[in-house]
Amino acid sequence: MSSFPEVAPLDSLACWRSFAQAAQNTPVNPQRLCVLKAGGLLVDTSAQRASPELAQATEALLQARQFETWREHLLTGQVVNLTENRAAWHSALRVPAPSQQVAGERERMLDFVRLADAERKWRNVVHIGIGGSDWGVRLCIAAFGYAGTWRNVRFVSNIDGHAIEGGLAGLDPHETLVVVSSKSFTTSETMQNAHRALEWLKGAGIQNPYNHVVAITANAQAAREWGALPSQTFLFWEWVGGRFSIWSSVALTTALAVGIDTLAGMQAGAHAMDQHFATAPVAENAPVQLAVSGVVNRSVLGYGSLNIAPYDFRLGYLVPYLQQLEMESLGKSVDLNGNAVNVPTGPAVWGMPGTDAQHTFFQWLHQGSDGAPVDFIVCQEANHGWREAHHTHLLANCLAQRQAMLTGKSYEQALQECRAEGHAEEHAQWLAKHRMHTGGRSSNLIVLPRLSPYTLGALLALYEHKVFTQAVIWGINPFDQWGVEYGKVLAKGITQELKGQAPLNGGHDASTRYWVEVFRG
Amino acid sequence: MSSFPEVAPLDSLACWRSFAQAAQNTPVNPQRLCVLKAGGLLVDTSAQRASPELAQATEALLQARQFETWREHLLTGQVVNLTENRAAWHSALRVPAPSQQVAGERERMLDFVRLADAERKWRNVVHIGIGGSDWGVRLCIAAFGYAGTWRNVRFVSNIDGHAIEGGLAGLDPHETLVVVSSKSFTTSETMQNAHRALEWLKGAGIQNPYNHVVAITANAQAAREWGALPSQTFLFWEWVGGRFSIWSSVALTTALAVGIDTLAGMQAGAHAMDQHFATAPVAENAPVQLAVSGVVNRSVLGYGSLNIAPYDFRLGYLVPYLQQLEMESLGKSVDLNGNAVNVPTGPAVWGMPGTDAQHTFFQWLHQGSDGAPVDFIVCQEANHGWREAHHTHLLANCLAQRQAMLTGKSYEQALQECRAEGHAEEHAQWLAKHRMHTGGRSSNLIVLPRLSPYTLGALLALYEHKVFTQAVIWGINPFDQWGVEYGKVLAKGITQELKGQAPLNGGHDASTRYWVEVFRG
Repeated sequence: MSSFPEVAPLDSLACWRSFAQAAQNTPVNPQRLCVLKAGGLLVDTSAQRASPELAQATEALLQARQFETWREHLLTGQVVNLTENRAAWHSALRVPAPSQQVAGERERMLDFVRLADAERKWRNVVHIGIGGSDWGVRLCIAAFGYAGTWRNVRFVSNIDGHAIEGGLAGLDPHETLVVVSSKSFTTSETMQNAHRALEWLKGAGIQNPYNHVVAITANAQAAREWGALPSQTFLFWEWVGGRFSIWSSVALTTALAVGIDTLAGMQAGAHAMDQHFATAPVAENAPVQLAVSGVVNRSVLGYGSLNIAPYDFRLGYLVPYLQQLEMESLGKSVDLNGNAVNVPTGPAVWGMPGTDAQHTFFQWLHQGSDGAPVDFIVCQEANHGWREAHHTHLLANCLAQRQAMLTGKSYEQALQECRAEGHAEEHAQWLAKHRMHTGGRSSNLIVLPRLSPYTLGALLALYEHKVFTQAVIWGINPFDQWGVEYGKVLAKGITQELKGQAPLNGGHDASTRYWVEVFRG
Repeated sequence: MSSFPEVAPLDSLACWRSFAQAAQNTPVNPQRLCVLKAGGLLVDTSAQRASPELAQATEALLQARQFETWREHLLTGQVVNLTENRAAWHSALRVPAPSQQVAGERERMLDFVRLADAERKWRNVVHIGIGGSDWGVRLCIAAFGYAGTWRNVRFVSNIDGHAIEGGLAGLDPHETLVVVSSKSFTTSETMQNAHRALEWLKGAGIQNPYNHVVAITANAQAAREWGALPSQTFLFWEWVGGRFSIWSSVALTTALAVGIDTLAGMQAGAHAMDQHFATAPVAENAPVQLAVSGVVNRSVLGYGSLNIAPYDFRLGYLVPYLQQLEMESLGKSVDLNGNAVNVPTGPAVWGMPGTDAQHTFFQWLHQGSDGAPVDFIVCQEANHGWREAHHTHLLANCLAQRQAMLTGKSYEQALQECRAEGHAEEHAQWLAKHRMHTGGRSSNLIVLPRLSPYTLGALLALYEHKVFTQAVIWGINPFDQWGVEYGKVLAKGITQELKGQAPLNGGHDASTRYWVEVFRG
């Protein structure tokens, strides 16, 4: 701790007050154009508040928060996760020449995949993991295997028994590889589902079911004790946080499903973004600029949520992936010193691919009480052949929704429409009030030239560094997750009560007491 | 309009001010127990604010808003959608003896399914629809077909060409039925995707591809002109809103995938909830109580969002289903008279099945700045055989997370933990500040005895009526969606510009102008 500065309460800083004031004084300007280049992506921040005063206050704020020092510590593997006394060095997994430890383990893992491919082995893969051991793999396989893959991949994450029942249903165990992924190798959902899968393999008469199992973990000993073969156990490290584990051996299932080259491509894209983040000046630094406008939207203007709108069917799992990245990292209200942060921190993150989102909740974004800032994400080129018939429409919808939020529709415009439809004047005036949009709503537009491992890797790293920068500004630790631990402890106790292994805990609230009694029957 | 009363601004009503004050004066009470019975479900509202003053103010508020009149108008098919001059009579689709029109069309539709089943026909079904023509069907098939179905069902909704590419990939056209569902039969995504599917059928040498197509619409003429066979066109009606269309012929795909009886079961459950809503006194009326606490959370306490946490793997699509229902209905800021509503209306709705959610964003719910009210949903009994090994854990996790949000963890508790782990006193004190939970966060718990068509139907109707009641309190129209229309108009214009069929529109903002030029290449 001693090497890190004290974190002053944000509103005690003059530069914060200047920042907040500059942001409040600056409306969104539809005539602004700002497109940043970063790691092969184009990041359009035109529809965010910007002014020379705000830019100046941003520089001062970042300096007051020792942003450059923190960034260097992050990227050089120093301890940045203070409450757990650990580095968060996922960027080291993406450099062109990683450490021998990293390179060696990756080669072992890829050799496993190469052999399986050469032997046309494992027609089915059941990937068992949850949270960070799950979303990244789902994301990559949906992105690059959206039209089907030679291997049939199923995901099982939830403790709900219907999940493993559905995950195994209809598969031939003899052709099935079970991948068990857990950093600690103690995650209760994962271990329980893995146990079911082992039973299923045994039930099919497979003599050594562990031959059909791969373990991915940072805890080699636990995996060995559980029965996993060392030759089919692939490691990652304490300094890779669960929500960053797609950059580690967890990507084995990705490689099995959509090809080994996917991994190198993603690493290269993410590394390009790491370099951009490390070196680009603040005004041109895309993660930093996204972070700053996010802080403006959340802590100055008070928006409670951030909507993610990938205009790409293949990026559906980007939403839960970013929910974990953003909300587990920034869902904190205590600063590094343990004091309450006195401005709102991380927003709720939610979303859905457009155009589905347009038919689901865009009504609320346009005409609801608050609305929310939106990150639009779209590929300039599609990987299919229907440019005119489909892709042009997708691009147009993306631009149109963004424009509607930015510029709105005035009462006068709406009234003209209603008159043109032939409504009587009084009715037209009444109807027009229901049809206007206030506009002035901020958004970003992130353009990928095309969806590829490289651009997806860059996109994920863009958000990682945005989140990190926001944590530095808010003065919080984005790498712990103490809020997740408490529920686990409570759940253990209640499980024992439900199983009759412990008496009813007198400390429960009335409702919990009631349901424990009902559920234990 | 004349038959409806003027809607007074909420904060001009004395009963609103009493309501808000009573809510503010009443903290959540962990010793309260309140479990309502409704349509076969148990709705636990214990962890919401309640007091005799609040109950009294609620009665007065509902009376001032003429809730009983509105409810009667809704359930008897009178015009409740004022801006579109239409009824919203989805409840009429669920009564035991529906009108001849409804019953006749339903029988035609079921006869189609019965014949297909008898002939073991249509091994694959590609369901093309978006929004209300999509989410309900996905929800039902995931709920009851989670372990696989005899028919292989694919969904295609997005205009993104990768969606239809992936949706058709690997299927044999000769065994494939294409279901095209659009109330207007003009929805651009749906018509474009249907066109692709027709080309695909033709490309396989199928002489009359329309033999492989079913149309579901309220616009029979448009379907006929498009080429759909009248014998394979199934109707629904103008008085069924898009987001309620799962109760109509749109459920044909549900019946093909998970059985005809599913529909009758869902209708029966929804009808039971309709009757509960129509007759239960306010204090015992589950949709009304959910509505009232939702208004407290949103308009009095200022929570910007509502989290939906189904502790059931099979209910993943409940989240987007409810996002559409809640946000398209309540994403309005103008009352029936056209005046701005002067309190915040519908929240952002988001969520994910637990326990996945625990590993994704529950950190934020426990320790983030704001948190959000949560609706926990769980089944007392599972449909699998692993009660001890899985279902008990699922139930325990659900109760534990809810309890952690309600009762929190004090600094003293956290400090004891840290000391017990052997940390030095100063470090323990610092660490404890990162590990405390404020608690006091409100939630509901909805318990289904078991997931069945009946209980799912009741659950969907519960939310429908909650949303309707909130609209009555806020004085808004929950049945229109003008915010969806504007983007469509803008998208048409930009599409023409991108295709070079129109010049660049000088009215665009700078960024839209820039991207139109880049994208049209």
